[in-house]
This record gives sequence, structure tokens and C-alpha cells, in this order.
Amino acid sequence: MQYNFAKLYCTHLPYTSAGKRMEQDTRTATVMEAVKRKIASRLLQPGEKLPSIRGFAATMRVSPSTVVTAYDRLAAEGIIYARRGSGFYVADAARPFSVADVGPQLDREIDPFWVSRQSLDAGPDVLKPGCGWLPADWMPSEAMQRGLRALARTGGGHLFDYGETRGALNLRHLLARQFSEEGLEVNPGQVLLTPSGTQAIDLICRFFLRPGDTVLVDDPCYFNFQALLKAHRVEVAGVSFTRSGPDTELFEEALTRHKPKLYITNSGLHNPTGATISPQVAHKVLNLVTAHGLVVIEDDIFGSFAPEPLPSLAVLDGLECVIRIGSFSKTLSASVRCGYITARTDWIEALVDLQVATNFGGPGPVASDLVYGVLSDGSYRKHMEALRVRLAKKRREVADRLERLGITPWLSPRGGFYLWCSLPDGRDAATIARSALRRNVVLAPGNVFSVSQTMTGFLRFNVSQMGARQVYDVLESAMKPAGG
Amino acid sequence: MQYNFAKLYCTHLPYTSAGKRMEQDTRTATVMEAVKRKIASRLLQPGEKLPSIRGFAATMRVSPSTVVTAYDRLAAEGIIYARRGSGFYVADAARPFSVADVGPQLDREIDPFWVSRQSLDAGPDVLKPGCGWLPADWMPSEAMQRGLRALARTGGGHLFDYGETRGALNLRHLLARQFSEEGLEVNPGQVLLTPSGTQAIDLICRFFLRPGDTVLVDDPCYFNFQALLKAHRVEVAGVSFTRSGPDTELFEEALTRHKPKLYITNSGLHNPTGATISPQVAHKVLNLVTAHGLVVIEDDIFGSFAPEPLPSLAVLDGLECVIRIGSFSKTLSASVRCGYITARTDWIEALVDLQVATNFGGPGPVASDLVYGVLSDGSYRKHMEALRVRLAKKRREVADRLERLGITPWLSPRGGFYLWCSLPDGRDAATIARSALRRNVVLAPGNVFSVSQTMTGFLRFNVSQMGARQVYDVLESAMKPAGG
Repeated sequence: MQYNFAKLYCTHLPYTSAGKRMEQDTRTATVMEAVKRKIASRLLQPGEKLPSIRGFAATMRVSPSTVVTAYDRLAAEGIIYARRGSGFYVADAARPFSVADVGPQLDREIDPFWVSRQSLDAGPDVLKPGCGWLPADWMPSEAMQRGLRALARTGGGHLFDYGETRGALNLRHLLARQFSEEGLEVNPGQVLLTPSGTQAIDLICRFFLRPGDTVLVDDPCYFNFQALLKAHRVEVAGVSFTRSGPDTELFEEALTRHKPKLYITNSGLHNPTGATISPQVAHKVLNLVTAHGLVVIEDDIFGSFAPEPLPSLAVLDGLECVIRIGSFSKTLSASVRCGYITARTDWIEALVDLQVATNFGGPGPVASDLVYGVLSDGSYRKHMEALRVRLAKKRREVADRLERLGITPWLSPRGGFYLWCSLPDGRDAATIARSALRRNVVLAPGNVFSVSQTMTGFLRFNVSQMGARQVYDVLESAMKPAGG
Repeated sequence: MQYNFAKLYCTHLPYTSAGKRMEQDTRTATVMEAVKRKIASRLLQPGEKLPSIRGFAATMRVSPSTVVTAYDRLAAEGIIYARRGSGFYVADAARPFSVADVGPQLDREIDPFWVSRQSLDAGPDVLKPGCGWLPADWMPSEAMQRGLRALARTGGGHLFDYGETRGALNLRHLLARQFSEEGLEVNPGQVLLTPSGTQAIDLICRFFLRPGDTVLVDDPCYFNFQALLKAHRVEVAGVSFTRSGPDTELFEEALTRHKPKLYITNSGLHNPTGATISPQVAHKVLNLVTAHGLVVIEDDIFGSFAPEPLPSLAVLDGLECVIRIGSFSKTLSASVRCGYITARTDWIEALVDLQVATNFGGPGPVASDLVYGVLSDGSYRKHMEALRVRLAKKRREVADRLERLGITPWLSPRGGFYLWCSLPDGRDAATIARSALRRNVVLAPGNVFSVSQTMTGFLRFNVSQMGARQVYDVLESAMKPAGG
């Protein structure tokens, strides 16, 4: 089960001459893969020169001839090209449709995919204070291992069947009970399990949006909302997010001017700011939403990180025009993928059809069983209690260390792992992020979160990923003015 | 881990008066859920009368007052409504957008969702010769259980992290090697893992299609292609599928007339017919496709069921304009969901972005580790060998039994679990399917597979789900002419 490639290849390749050739092919493929990964993660940009043959051979611990073969094949594939006497360069591949090509023009180098691909595809030697998840060793290992062993014992249909179209009933019951504790009365039939929180939003977008519609998001907001909405070919309008939620005057103005079909938000522990909507703002926003007849997606993915239930548009509204979505990727596992939607019954019915059409159902029983197991045996509650205490301490520690570098948290969040921070003296976050990346530190620069592209002076930090001194050293050095 | 609700509620509900009230709520919820499921699965249609209070109370083993409460709440939710002195009826819920409302008008009762929802949401007492998967006890239990235990031992990031944007490299390497054995040379960077085969197709459709485009499918074809394409709001054109692939004359005519952007097909062991494209037809189709500049999605989900590699458009084309997709849902597990796309590098790069935008990546490491484990340790090969032998025998047996009822297989497939059969004397498959459903047997009537709605005389049978004598009894009785 480990990614031990040496072992993997030995098992499959007997040491014959054919085996040697295949081994050579494998080495070549590994080098090609490494180059493609650098390109995919923007470490190598279109037009940029590739590492020298000799240098890259040393890095990859292969012979220079392997690198030559790899570069030649990459050139044959059109991914790179050779300039006579100069070396190899990254090609600008022609694409029939790229999400990054659609919608408002953002900074193409630091676009909404920048943080996702950097952090998802980063090797183990890369530090990721810009990423959006907790380190694996903060997660409930024992509970998950117990769940896997229990599944192995259970066997049968759980391991092999698609499961119900709405997802496992026991998990839907449990979620409905949790919502009811918040004052949101729903029946399990109003809960639809999805393979992820992102897919939950995607499904709802498919249901309500047509190309050319406008969607309102917070500015700043989670960068992937923008990427997702581009895939739907809709216009995105932003509304300033204050320390107590969206600016209600600008919100009303945006509803009048843009007539959005949807508003997508994190009301509680907003990403990236960590702010939470106040009850007064929630009430006003809901009145405006009702008056203008739009639908709200409340992404409650960080709700469990708060020590107490937070103000919620979905609860206030009773699911008339607000849809709540969430997932367990942040609190339990992003590997066992499971999200949910809770909404009006008639909408859920139609979303079930859409999910069958586009994914032949939701998460399989293996995923929902694992989630249900951890949620129902008390280990989730204990895990979350410990996590809240640990994160509160980390938020204070990291805020102190950042402030010593002149980086100032915008507010002190009531929970979660993000600190949204302003940089000193007009420093540019994108420049700092590029510089840090060269030293194996992935940061999240403000503008990837901003529709208006006005957050150049901000960085979002994940306090759980900032134990290493190197993070602060790299930050300090990256913040030095050029030539300074 | 078992769906033992009695136990579940006991754990959570101490037997106090509050507990009693909650238990009562739970019973009510269970009754409501049962009704909703009947509605979702079309067992109860809009306008149809609900079971009597007393009768349903007996069925559900609850008190009549629980059923009254449940019906009242369902009425409050607008799902059913009361007619004074007459009882309760299923409401026709208003929906802002229903996939079933878009695209060519099909028979609304027997639409492409009919089989999916019937078979996915069927209880254990329902027989499913119309469904599209193998029974759980035909699947490699030991290998999967070994995989789960190995994952529990490994722990760490595999259990908690998102994984790479393309999916696990070891599984992509393994798939690339398998393709190469077929003569399709791809590198692992050209393989993108997806959460399912359906999502693989969905992602490609998002990449290439715009609302209003036309897509060509086989007639008949897998019913969910139609449901999926409706969600993309495109026109669907069908081309007659012969025993050796699509009719090439009609294919050319369709390309000229409809100018489709995409053609989606199963070349090998086609669903529902079980036919396989001949090398000659494959060659002709590929020439036409190249001449007209469209893209082909070859869904190879049934390829592994054939005893030898089948003719393939993707292999013949070398992935110039053909994209291959597949999954392990049919051969290994539909609960551990994992599919793949292999295509040109530039397309894959853009599809990676799209999958990040719409699902924040592909299947998590838990899913890909489980699949990789079974695929790499030899147990998959053994499982498939045994499965092919078992299915060949079943196909013969079931064909014999069906022929005794006057139901005739259209051809004898080279592998897989489907038999596409014609009914005697102009019998209508939809009528038979409705009648069988009342006796807890889910069938797959021809027209759910047909764009032209000309397959009224066909049923698709899954030979692995036809061991019970009841299937044949119900079939025989359902085929009797009315009053006969």
C-alpha cells in the first residue's frame, strides 16, 4: 500500500534485458512526470527554460541520457520544445477550452488554480502554510483505522454496491439530528450525500444556473468558488466582506445592479478571513435575498470548528431559499470523500436526478460507513473538542510570530485554522508567494481570493501548517524589498 | 457499521419521556422516508393515491397514528396532499429545473432515470434483473477485506489527504502498462483518475460541449448517457447500432446532418446489446470521425469482461481524437468509486483544472489505494478469469430459460452480463416492466436505452441477477396479454 516505487517495479519487472528496457522506460517516464508536474504546478511557466540535462540528471538520480530521452519525448508530445543550441523550453499548449481562459481576467500566473495545484501536487519536502487542510497527524487516526477494520469485518454489499441515490440513510439521519440541535428541522429525505463539498456546490449550480447568469460571492472568498463558477460560464460579482459578514449596503446594490441568481458564502468562519456573520447582518441579508428572489448556498464546511453554533442563514431561513452544504474533508478526512446538501424537498428530489445523471449517485457505502462510524461512536466529538483547543493555541502563537514580522491578522477568528493577514508597507503578496515557492513554501496570496483583485496586500495562513521555523525564515526573506 | 436502526436509536435515545417522544419522531421519519422512497422510485406516481392508513401501518409495523402524523407532515412539506374524505395523494412538486424536463420528450414514466432510481433504491426484497451490476457475493471479498486491513495498518496521509490532482501515481502507472499491453502507448501523466466512469464522461462533456451542441450516441445506448447529456443541455442524435457496431452509412449521414461535437460509445461489449465493434467498422468510423473533426468518448467500462482485448477506437486512433474512459465499478467495486480518463496530454491538463474546479480533485487515496491493491497483487486477474467463466455459463443458462418464454437474445455476446432480448408478438416492454415492478422485480425496458424510442419490443437482462425462479414466473405472468 505504500508508494514504494522501487518495490513496485521490482515486483513487475523480472531482470531480463526486456526488463532492463522497461526499467529504462520507467525511469524516462518518471523524469517526464517530474517535468509535467513542475509545469502543472506553475513551477515552470510557458516559455521558461527547462533545467539543464546534466543538472536535472543529478537531481533525479538518473543518467543524462535518460533526461535526453525524456525531454525528447516531452517535445514529441508538444509539452516542451527545443531551441537549437539553447536548450528546452516549456511550450504554450493549445487547449480547446481551459477554465482559466473563461470569465473575468485574473492574474494568469496567480490564478484561482495556483494554490490548489501547488498544494495538492506538492511533494513531502514542501511546506504548505497556504494550503486549506490540517496535517494528517492532526486527524483521528485510531478512529479511522477502527472504521476500516470494522468495514473489513462487515464485508458484503457495503464493499461493493453503489448505495442509495441519496446516500446512506444512517448518516443522513445523523446529520438531520445535528441540524435539529441548531434549530434547523429537516427530515433525512432532505439530506443528499455528495462525493465532496465542492461537488455539492457544483450540483446546485447546475440546477439553478445557465451560462451568462450572474452569481454573487464575497470579496474575498474561497478561490475555488471562482474556478467552479468559471466552469459554469457565469458572471461573478463580488461584495465586500466585512468583519461581520457581507457589507449590506453593497450587497443590496449588487442585487439591484447584477440581479444574481445565486449567492455563495461561508457565513461562519468565512474562508479566507475567518470572520463570522453577525445575527443582524444575517437577518438583513436574508431579507434582501427574499425580496430579490435569489437562492443562497451556505457552505458550512468550517462550522464544526466553532466552539458553539454560529449564526446561520440556513437556520434563520428554515431552508426556504437557503441551501446548506458541507463536508467532512476538513474535520475528518479528505481522502474518504463525503459531503452533503440539505435543502427543500422538491429541490433535493431534482438534485438526486442530477447526481444520478452526472455521477450515478453519491459517495459509495465505503465512504459513508467510515464517516458514519467516526461520527456516531463519540470519537468525532472528542477529536473536534481537542482540535478546537489546539487550534486556538496555534492561532495565538502564529499571530504573535507573524506580527513580529510586521504581518498583521485582520481579525481574531472564533475558530478554524485560517489567519487572514495584511502585509506591511504595500508589500505585494503575489511577489512574496512566487519567491517563497522557489524555496519550497506554498503561500496563498490575497488576490487568488479576490474577484476585484484588490487583495494584493493580504496573505491567508493556515496555522496548523506553520510549525517549522523555515516558514518564517522564508517569509522574512521573501518580504525583503528587491535589492534590500 | 450495520444499518441496524433499532440499535442506532437505542444508543442515542435514553428511555425517558423525551426519549419516547424522539422515538416516536423517528418512527414517523421512517414512515415519511418510506413514502418518499416510493415516490422517488416511481412506485407511487404524481396524482396516485397513497396506501390506506391502516394498511400502511401494518406494513411498516407502526401504529396508525404514526402513519397519520407522517402523512400530515408530508402534506405540510407539499409532497402529498389530502382530499377530503378520500385520502392522501402524491403531489406534483413544482421544480425550478428538472433534468427530466429538458431535451427530447421521452416517455415520462419510463424515462432514463427509471432504471437507475428503481434499482439503486430498491430494498433487499426486490429482484433486479434490470440493474447494471453484479451481486456483491460475486465480487472479490477477500481481496477487498485484505486491502482495508492493509490501509488500516498504513494509516497516515493515505487516510486523510486529498491526494494528487491527477490521482495516485501508482494506479496511473499500472493503467498505462495495461493500455500498453493493448498497443496503446500512454504515459502515466496522460491518465487522470476520476471518482467514477460517469464523472469521467461528465468532465469531458464540460470540456467540449456548449448548450445547444449536438452529441451522437448509439441507438440503443446506456440510458444514463441520455440523462447526462440532458444535464448539459445539448441535443442528442442517435445512430442505429448493429451487431458489429454503429451503422456506418447512418453514422456518416448523422455527422453530415447534425455536425455533432462528440460521439459517445461502448465499442466493446456495448451496453445494452453486448455487441462489439468489428475491426472494419472501427476503421471506417475512425476515418469518418477524423474527416468530420469530432471527438469520441470510448467508454471501456466492460472491456475487462472480454476474454481477449477487443477492437478499440482509442487504440486504433492512438488517442488523437478518441478519449478512453473506464472504471472499476462493474468489475471490482461500485462502493469504492474510481474511474479514469486517458487522452492527449493537453486535454488531460485542462481536465485536471476542471476536476479541481468542480470536485477539488479526483478520488481520494483511500479509494485508489484499495483499487491499486486488488489490481496489483494478482487477485483482480484471478477474479476476472473466474468471473468470465461463470458469466459465460450464466449467459447460456439464462438465454435458454428466456427462450422457453419466447424471449430471444439479439446476439450472443463475447462477454459481460447483459443479454439484449426481443419480446414475442409485439409485446410492450414498458407495460411488462411496470407490471413486474408491482411484483418486486425491476426490469430494464428497451426504450430507456433508445433515443428514437423504437425499442418497445426489447428488454435488457443482467444474467448475474437471474438465479431466482421468481424472475421467470413474474416475467411469464407479466407477458400475458391483458385479460389473457
